[in-house]
Amino acid sequence: MRELKPPARPLEPDGATLRDWLGQTGRKLGAFLDGLPDQPAAQLTGSRRIAQVFAGPAPEAGTPLRRLLSLLVDRVAPVALNTAHPGYLGFIPGGGLPQSALADLITGVLNRYTGLWMPAPGLVQLEIQAIRWLCTAVGYPEDDRCGGILTSGGSLANLGALVAAREHHLGENFGDGVVFVSAQTHHSVAKAARVVGLRRDQLVPVACRPDFTMDPAALSAAVAAARQAGQRPFLVVASAGSTATGAVDPLAAIADRCAAAGLWLHVDGAYGGCFALTDRGRAALAGLARADSITLDPHKGLFLPYGTGALLVRERARLRAAFTEGASYLPAGSEDADHWDFADLGPELSRPPRGLRLWLPIQLHGLGAFRAALDEKLDLARSAAEALCALDHVVLVSPPTLSLFTLQGRPPGVAGPALDAHQRRILRDTNQRGRVFLTGATVGPPGPARFVIRVCVLSFRTHQAQIDALVADLGAAIATQTAAPGAQAGTGRGTTSAGASGPSRRSSQ
Amino acid sequence: MRELKPPARPLEPDGATLRDWLGQTGRKLGAFLDGLPDQPAAQLTGSRRIAQVFAGPAPEAGTPLRRLLSLLVDRVAPVALNTAHPGYLGFIPGGGLPQSALADLITGVLNRYTGLWMPAPGLVQLEIQAIRWLCTAVGYPEDDRCGGILTSGGSLANLGALVAAREHHLGENFGDGVVFVSAQTHHSVAKAARVVGLRRDQLVPVACRPDFTMDPAALSAAVAAARQAGQRPFLVVASAGSTATGAVDPLAAIADRCAAAGLWLHVDGAYGGCFALTDRGRAALAGLARADSITLDPHKGLFLPYGTGALLVRERARLRAAFTEGASYLPAGSEDADHWDFADLGPELSRPPRGLRLWLPIQLHGLGAFRAALDEKLDLARSAAEALCALDHVVLVSPPTLSLFTLQGRPPGVAGPALDAHQRRILRDTNQRGRVFLTGATVGPPGPARFVIRVCVLSFRTHQAQIDALVADLGAAIATQTAAPGAQAGTGRGTTSAGASGPSRRSSQ
Repeated sequence: MRELKPPARPLEPDGATLRDWLGQTGRKLGAFLDGLPDQPAAQLTGSRRIAQVFAGPAPEAGTPLRRLLSLLVDRVAPVALNTAHPGYLGFIPGGGLPQSALADLITGVLNRYTGLWMPAPGLVQLEIQAIRWLCTAVGYPEDDRCGGILTSGGSLANLGALVAAREHHLGENFGDGVVFVSAQTHHSVAKAARVVGLRRDQLVPVACRPDFTMDPAALSAAVAAARQAGQRPFLVVASAGSTATGAVDPLAAIADRCAAAGLWLHVDGAYGGCFALTDRGRAALAGLARADSITLDPHKGLFLPYGTGALLVRERARLRAAFTEGASYLPAGSEDADHWDFADLGPELSRPPRGLRLWLPIQLHGLGAFRAALDEKLDLARSAAEALCALDHVVLVSPPTLSLFTLQGRPPGVAGPALDAHQRRILRDTNQRGRVFLTGATVGPPGPARFVIRVCVLSFRTHQAQIDALVADLGAAIATQTAAPGAQAGTGRGTTSAGASGPSRRSSQ
Repeated sequence: MRELKPPARPLEPDGATLRDWLGQTGRKLGAFLDGLPDQPAAQLTGSRRIAQVFAGPAPEAGTPLRRLLSLLVDRVAPVALNTAHPGYLGFIPGGGLPQSALADLITGVLNRYTGLWMPAPGLVQLEIQAIRWLCTAVGYPEDDRCGGILTSGGSLANLGALVAAREHHLGENFGDGVVFVSAQTHHSVAKAARVVGLRRDQLVPVACRPDFTMDPAALSAAVAAARQAGQRPFLVVASAGSTATGAVDPLAAIADRCAAAGLWLHVDGAYGGCFALTDRGRAALAGLARADSITLDPHKGLFLPYGTGALLVRERARLRAAFTEGASYLPAGSEDADHWDFADLGPELSRPPRGLRLWLPIQLHGLGAFRAALDEKLDLARSAAEALCALDHVVLVSPPTLSLFTLQGRPPGVAGPALDAHQRRILRDTNQRGRVFLTGATVGPPGPARFVIRVCVLSFRTHQAQIDALVADLGAAIATQTAAPGAQAGTGRGTTSAGASGPSRRSSQ
């Protein structure tokens, strides 16, 4: 046998090299963390220029880490919405716990395969346990029947729920199946429906009440109408904190209707579901535990970095039935009450281990620290809404049922498109002050489509100081813009800046 | 306004705390790296015991990092298939570059949102550029029309291709569409087909030739038969290195047939596609660049830790057409030749940034280092196959077209189920020696279903020393088991160990 030498440029770092890299990276990222409060909450000037840095073919030779770190952290990262910033109140924040980033480091170096139980029993069980903690948080029974899977985010969690409901109720022939949604349903549901093969007309909108929550009576009427038309209703998607307005659908009443009609209830709690850890959240989300499936986004409600959603189900067997590739040549998996094969609970066979980035921060700090942080967000949002509504020409459009509320600045005599343009000017003015970052959304029905300013308090780094800045800066922007010529009725001179007033699609992170 | 104090147990580490954590973690992971060669390639004794460590509710109070690191790295990680080990030759290895783990650390601390271009233009462009490097690697034209998206793995890359082909060729009503696969097609394709709403009878198997490659003539016949039956053929899924045998379908001939019949050609190169970076790989994969879409798994062929697949497409516009939620109320995105919104190219709106874990290792070492490592794997696999086939009673079942080959130990007079059991005993014997880890697969048709021993050389840590160990240990196991009573014809006394001889489903990581 020929003896082959390893390549001259080995890819393997030894322990000392890894420690050196981590030392360099720690110094750079430590400075990033310490400098966060002094950075703007968003900085989009120079976007095209910074993007051009990355043009060109793959390098044949290497570059020292020091130079790459400087490029990434000092030059590239700042030109962005500063989604790690304490004053970031746009879209749905989360902040990104560095503890989870540490977990990802460990996960990657260990490089265990966790798609099945057998190859890495400890790390899979850690992930199972983290999912069970989430099941407990939403109020699922403490039995072995519930369960779920961690996903890359809410989009794929919603997709998994659609497939599980479709397979459970309809099987392979689902052309006459109908899903009920509302105007507040996150558009990832419509997208997932298309991906999993539902036609657009198989999504039926249910009317909302004036507070943007789904009307249970309208739901029942829509279900009856679909049945009369020969269709097969099988799924209702309710929102536990909608992205646009923060509205929480009446989950208990919807669960009643679903039970009566034999429909699968999926609750999209990507934004709001994790508030079930708090007493007030649990009250606002009453009925949540009756859902057949629930989407959570720990990268929102538990402050993880982007990349971790969760699909929870009351009956794990239904998820398994939908996602196990049951060909006769395949063996039985490890699955029993205590040992799950994640490959049988979702569409991914190869996937990154996602458990440690959730488990480690909870172990390091205790769930109590998360509960306290979520309670603080509820307090901060209420406090902010109260202070802002005390200002002249400010109208609350949707209240902080959880930690998200919407408002409009309404100068006398301004309406229609001019009023929308006024909100966009206020947003841009506020954001240009640099201490907080807000986004807007177009809402309605019910009512005409109108643009509102959103405030979402959900980063672990957001505290009273940022709320003070919000009230001061948004208040000043409202005053300035109300006094400006553009606020005159009917002039409509506002310009739209995508960065400052991202439209509804962008409110959906 | 009330003044709220931050919670007593803050979740925010400052820079010094992060550096301290990274110091502790670096020492522990550095020792892990340095100790890898002395660990066994797999260690599954104690699986149930280690899993029990994680029982119990979420802790209310925290635990110091030191104790958690010790638990994870010293106690939990070793009880597993050691997928980071240099002697790991089972399933499809990759090894898990610590450089990517470092990238994940950076990504998580920065916590930028990269689902759309605008919020983090630099980091999105970095990911776009990494995808373009992959497009170049597979031979796609150097124009602005091709593109793609990084996924969590090959499963979701294949799913994306199915959706794009379905939408492009069939639209919303696809009940009469037909997809052509072979017995070597990875089962994630069948699973993805089910997820995206295709009935099982919409997957049509095409016969393979004796070398396990798809027969182009049989493909043409199957397409014609489907059309005659009133169905709509729209997609062919070819394999560029199948998981079970390493077979590379005749891509150029299949591309000819697809072009003639107007079908979408998807090539699943999850295992083998990255070899296109080498001269020999490019020759073996001739025709790859004619595919409409290609799946790669950089967590295999570019040695990344689990969690990064890639879907590449010749026409990015087709991916965008399939995945853009085109409701009238949504704004135009940032998309143009140079600026892509990943949310419009796949099913995920929220998703982790996946670019840096691919970009950083290539920048640190240069693509040349990867090319050299892949070339080394080709050499090692050929060398191993040659040495093993020189042994008595060893028959090569499929050759190392790339770096994966299969063989059987065939003692005289042993056949049928007893021969399968013999392979399983050889596998278990080999694996128990601890220096390498192998898995098997059931193959056929063509020919009867039979169990074969697989060797897949793909970790960056695997060098000549591990091939020497493979040849010595597998050779000794073959000799031992051939001499053992169990190898007598017809006794069939072999037992199956899931750990030692994972069946075909498990050969699909």
